[in-house]
Amino acid sequence: MTVAGVGLVGGSLAGAVRSARLAGEVVGFGRSAANLRVARERGLVDRATQDPAEAVADADAIVLAVPVGTCPALAERFRAHARAGTILTDVGSVKAGLVRALEARWSGVGPVVGAHPIAGSESTGAGAARAELFQGRRCILTPIPGTDPTALARVRALWEGVGARVEEMPPAVHDELLARASHLPHVVACALAAAVDGTQVDGRVVLDYAGSGFRDTTRIAGSPAELWRDIALANAPALVAALREFRAALDRLEGAIASDDAPALEAALTLAQAVRRRLGRTE
Amino acid sequence: MTVAGVGLVGGSLAGAVRSARLAGEVVGFGRSAANLRVARERGLVDRATQDPAEAVADADAIVLAVPVGTCPALAERFRAHARAGTILTDVGSVKAGLVRALEARWSGVGPVVGAHPIAGSESTGAGAARAELFQGRRCILTPIPGTDPTALARVRALWEGVGARVEEMPPAVHDELLARASHLPHVVACALAAAVDGTQVDGRVVLDYAGSGFRDTTRIAGSPAELWRDIALANAPALVAALREFRAALDRLEGAIASDDAPALEAALTLAQAVRRRLGRTE
Repeated sequence: MTVAGVGLVGGSLAGAVRSARLAGEVVGFGRSAANLRVARERGLVDRATQDPAEAVADADAIVLAVPVGTCPALAERFRAHARAGTILTDVGSVKAGLVRALEARWSGVGPVVGAHPIAGSESTGAGAARAELFQGRRCILTPIPGTDPTALARVRALWEGVGARVEEMPPAVHDELLARASHLPHVVACALAAAVDGTQVDGRVVLDYAGSGFRDTTRIAGSPAELWRDIALANAPALVAALREFRAALDRLEGAIASDDAPALEAALTLAQAVRRRLGRTE
Repeated sequence: MTVAGVGLVGGSLAGAVRSARLAGEVVGFGRSAANLRVARERGLVDRATQDPAEAVADADAIVLAVPVGTCPALAERFRAHARAGTILTDVGSVKAGLVRALEARWSGVGPVVGAHPIAGSESTGAGAARAELFQGRRCILTPIPGTDPTALARVRALWEGVGARVEEMPPAVHDELLARASHLPHVVACALAAAVDGTQVDGRVVLDYAGSGFRDTTRIAGSPAELWRDIALANAPALVAALREFRAALDRLEGAIASDDAPALEAALTLAQAVRRRLGRTE
C-alpha cells in the first residue's frame, strides 16, 4: 500500500496499517524529505520515496492523503507508473467533484473508491500522526454507480482494520452533511479570528484578553490555509447554503440582543445549549 | 469574606482564598442547598448559608459571583444586613452598567470595586470549582473616579493572592474588549450550534457527523443560557458593534468562496491562521 502525503491523516493511517499488519509493505510518498524522514523514524512507513514511479510500481492500493485540490494532479502523475488493477482511494473532506476527477484520471488503470475519515486536528505533519487516530471515528465511503464492489470491500476492510466505523453514502450527500458539520464551523472560526486581527481598544490589544472561549472557538482556524482553501472551493455551493442557515441563526440571536428581548434571547441560547449538550463534552 | 454564588468562579475563588489563608473565614451564600453542601464538603467554604443576614453580618468584603443580571438585586438584599465599610465586589463579565448599579445599591454602606477574572469554562457548580482556576489568568479591576483606593488595593491583593495577573481599566474599555474577546465568540458559537438543530440531509442527522472542529467551535454554547443572556443584554451596544466586525470578516471569506477566488480565500484563511497561532495551542 502506498500513502501519498504522510501528514497527520496519511501518517496516522500508514502507522495504523503497519501496526495492524493490514499490508505487506507500507510505502510513504511525499514532497518533503524532512517529513518523510520523520515518518520513517517514527515507524509509520516501511520505506519512503519522493519518486512517483518507485512509490506506486508495486502498490495494490494507493491512498491520496494530500490537500483535495492536489489529488487529481497527483493521480495523473501516478497513472503512468501504476500496475493495472491498483485501487485508488483518498481521504478528502469533499467528495463529489473529487471522486469525478479521480475516476477520470484513473480510468483504464483500476477502481476508484472515495473515502473520508472524520478525524483530524489543527496539527500537521508526520510528527503529529498517531496510529489510534481513527479508533471509533466515522469513515465515510462514497461509492457511485459503477464502483467496483471488490475494491469497495477492500477499502472498507482497510478502514475497519484501523478501528473506524465505516458507512457508505452518495458523494453529494456527504458534501451536504460535511458542509454543515465541518466546513461551516471552519469558515466561522476563521472569520472570528480574522475579525479581531489588530483590533485595539484604548491602546489594548483585543487578542490579549482572549480566554478559553475564544481559544476553543477559533482553534481550527489554525489549520493549514491551503488545505481549507481547496475544501471550501470544492464544496462552495453547499457551504454557501450552510452559511445562509448560520446567518439566519445569528440574525435571531442578534435581533434579540439589539431589541433587548430577554425571553427570545434566552430561548435561542437554551436551544443552542441543548444542541451542544447532545454532542457531549468530549470526543 | 462572603462569596455569594458558590459556582465555578465563586467556588474556585472561595477555595483559593481558604487555601492561601487570605481571609479569617470564608462564608458561602447561595440559593441551592445542594450546591452549598457540595461547597462545604469540598472544603471551599468555612460555612454556608441561605440567609442573607447570616451571610454578610460579619463580612469585611462581599464577592458577588452570580449571573450579572442578578447582582444588583442581591446587593439590595445584602444592604440592610451589612456593616458600614464592607467592600462590595463582583466577578461579572460586563462592567459599566453593573458597576453603576452596584454603586447605587451600595451607596452609604461601603466602597464598590468592579472585578472580572478572565477564567471559566462551560462547567458549572461547586463541583467544578478548583482553587488553581485563576493561576496565571488575568483579572481586570474597573475602578471609576471616586473608587476608594484602599478598597481597590484590598481587592487587588485578593486576586493577586489567588495567582491572578491583575490590571485596571475603565469599565467601558473592559466592555469593548470583552465584547470582542469573549461575548462575540459566545454568540457565534451559539449560532453555529443552533444552525444545525434538527438539520438532516437525506435522512441523516448533521450533528452525527460533527468532528473535533465542530465540537471545539461550539463548546462554549453549552454554557448556562441564563448567564449569557444577562451578559449579552448588559453589553448589547458593544456586542452589536463586534458582530458587525465579525460579519465583515465573514463576508470577505464568503465572497471569495462564492466567486471561486482562490488567492483571496487563501489570503483570508492565512490571516486567520496567523491570528490564531499568535494565541498558541494551549491555555
